[in-house]
Amino acid sequence: MGGDFAPEEAVKGVAQYFSEHPDNAAHLFLFGDPEKAAAYLPLIATYTDKYTLVPASQVIGMHEHPTKALKEKPHSSIAIGFGWLQAGKVDAFLSAGNTGAMMVGAMYSIKAIEGILRPTIASPMPRTDGTYNLLLDVGANADCKPEHLVQFAELGSLYVQRVWGVSEPRVALLNLGEEEGKGNLLAQATYPLLKANQNIRFIGNVEGRDLFSDKAHVVVCEGFVGNVMLKMAESIHNIFVQRGVQDEFLTHLNYEIYGGTPILGVNAPVIIGHGISPALAFKSMIEEAGRIISADITQAFKEHFSSTQAS
Amino acid sequence: MGGDFAPEEAVKGVAQYFSEHPDNAAHLFLFGDPEKAAAYLPLIATYTDKYTLVPASQVIGMHEHPTKALKEKPHSSIAIGFGWLQAGKVDAFLSAGNTGAMMVGAMYSIKAIEGILRPTIASPMPRTDGTYNLLLDVGANADCKPEHLVQFAELGSLYVQRVWGVSEPRVALLNLGEEEGKGNLLAQATYPLLKANQNIRFIGNVEGRDLFSDKAHVVVCEGFVGNVMLKMAESIHNIFVQRGVQDEFLTHLNYEIYGGTPILGVNAPVIIGHGISPALAFKSMIEEAGRIISADITQAFKEHFSSTQAS
Repeated sequence: MGGDFAPEEAVKGVAQYFSEHPDNAAHLFLFGDPEKAAAYLPLIATYTDKYTLVPASQVIGMHEHPTKALKEKPHSSIAIGFGWLQAGKVDAFLSAGNTGAMMVGAMYSIKAIEGILRPTIASPMPRTDGTYNLLLDVGANADCKPEHLVQFAELGSLYVQRVWGVSEPRVALLNLGEEEGKGNLLAQATYPLLKANQNIRFIGNVEGRDLFSDKAHVVVCEGFVGNVMLKMAESIHNIFVQRGVQDEFLTHLNYEIYGGTPILGVNAPVIIGHGISPALAFKSMIEEAGRIISADITQAFKEHFSSTQAS
Repeated sequence: MGGDFAPEEAVKGVAQYFSEHPDNAAHLFLFGDPEKAAAYLPLIATYTDKYTLVPASQVIGMHEHPTKALKEKPHSSIAIGFGWLQAGKVDAFLSAGNTGAMMVGAMYSIKAIEGILRPTIASPMPRTDGTYNLLLDVGANADCKPEHLVQFAELGSLYVQRVWGVSEPRVALLNLGEEEGKGNLLAQATYPLLKANQNIRFIGNVEGRDLFSDKAHVVVCEGFVGNVMLKMAESIHNIFVQRGVQDEFLTHLNYEIYGGTPILGVNAPVIIGHGISPALAFKSMIEEAGRIISADITQAFKEHFSSTQAS
């Protein structure tokens, strides 16, 4: 039921996923209002053995206060989804609903992985070669300390390596200049920590102009900056599409292609979708969830941060 | 001599300016190495009464340390330019040279206007309707306090009003959400100050996606974020141009059209150009300097901040 166009687009996305992946064994649990979904269920009628509709009678609105809404609406799709995820009845949970509720729900149900100071929301950013970089944090942590950015770097590096198959991903610090010593106080304090970190392949600072380049696979920054960049990229996409520009890089700027932004550092895979997600975005999120589950990234994070802590 | 393509592109820009503004009474003083400029001076040979070549035997490199370079190179075009500006022998100074040296030169020669805590670098950002918004700070002040952002808001508002002729410009705070109370600590602390400020027309928060929209004429943020956004916009322009996309908004994303970024809050007009400025950018900077001089924005700033201080 999450997102502005639920349940129609969610169901359509599920239909698209099933039709494109006929041999995939994944079973989807759809949390939502059966009555509202009824009109669209015929779209997935041929796949009844591949999904289960789990009734959720409440909906958390896009502008509701996350903590309050989760407490007061235990029958919402988000609350039920996290309940199932926590109980291990599903392997990943995704929604295009209230971002704050998704973040709070993750923190209070499955919780942060031991050793993780601040779980983070990461967003793919397209390169001109058709692949993607990973930018994090993009909004979960508006204000950060150097040690948070260091963990983002490790989380992002592991994610890109395990889920996307990039061997030895290059990690960079977003900054306003390339030279060491440049930047605001946070960047200046973070640089030496990243440089000394043996768990990542740190290549130094990158600037705003390098986000779409092949300089780094993982770019770390404070959530405030990352959020502003993500939304700016989105607006650039929308402006040019509205103006009738057709271009492959422009297509890859479309968040629908990558679908959503995973929360990294919590005890199970969670993906947050855009509020205005159409079918394609839902399909893409389900695909990414599949890759995340196959890579068992949560286990990789757990092992990494327990050993990092111990050392 | 500033910029990667000096003096060729600078002289070509001057030629373009003279040819497009035959009736303008402006006299240009060109600071540079006469020998290096010699090859290009024929381009402006018909305008010898409109310019004066002022010899400058030294050049501050793009990667030199600003303070050190200014001290050790008193015969550089930047050092001489600020000397002339301070002495009142020119009404405005522009260069595509070392940004840091331009900022430091301004601070140590003409200095900040009394009452200004932190002079700021502002950048035009194109709207889809062909006009521009003003984003500030874009890099002079990586870390800011709320009172700095408030002054940026007043400086930007006055600039857009006086130099660009926008009556009652709308001023917004860059943030990661629209609602009051959203944001990092800085944005949360700045919002109420802007809201209570009687000198500006504050319309609240805008997000990264609103930079190119008509929501606000002036968008204020910390220099770290603004710099990242400016460079990201620049890269978007370059990527699409390289990919052969042709579009009017894309054209307006080109910094060459607006030329450079003025320093606001110092005792005389200064414009910093991009290091890779071609002729068009130099021409645009000279035009903007003309508008700044005509609007007598420095006097407007002085009056505003002396009265604001007193009240």
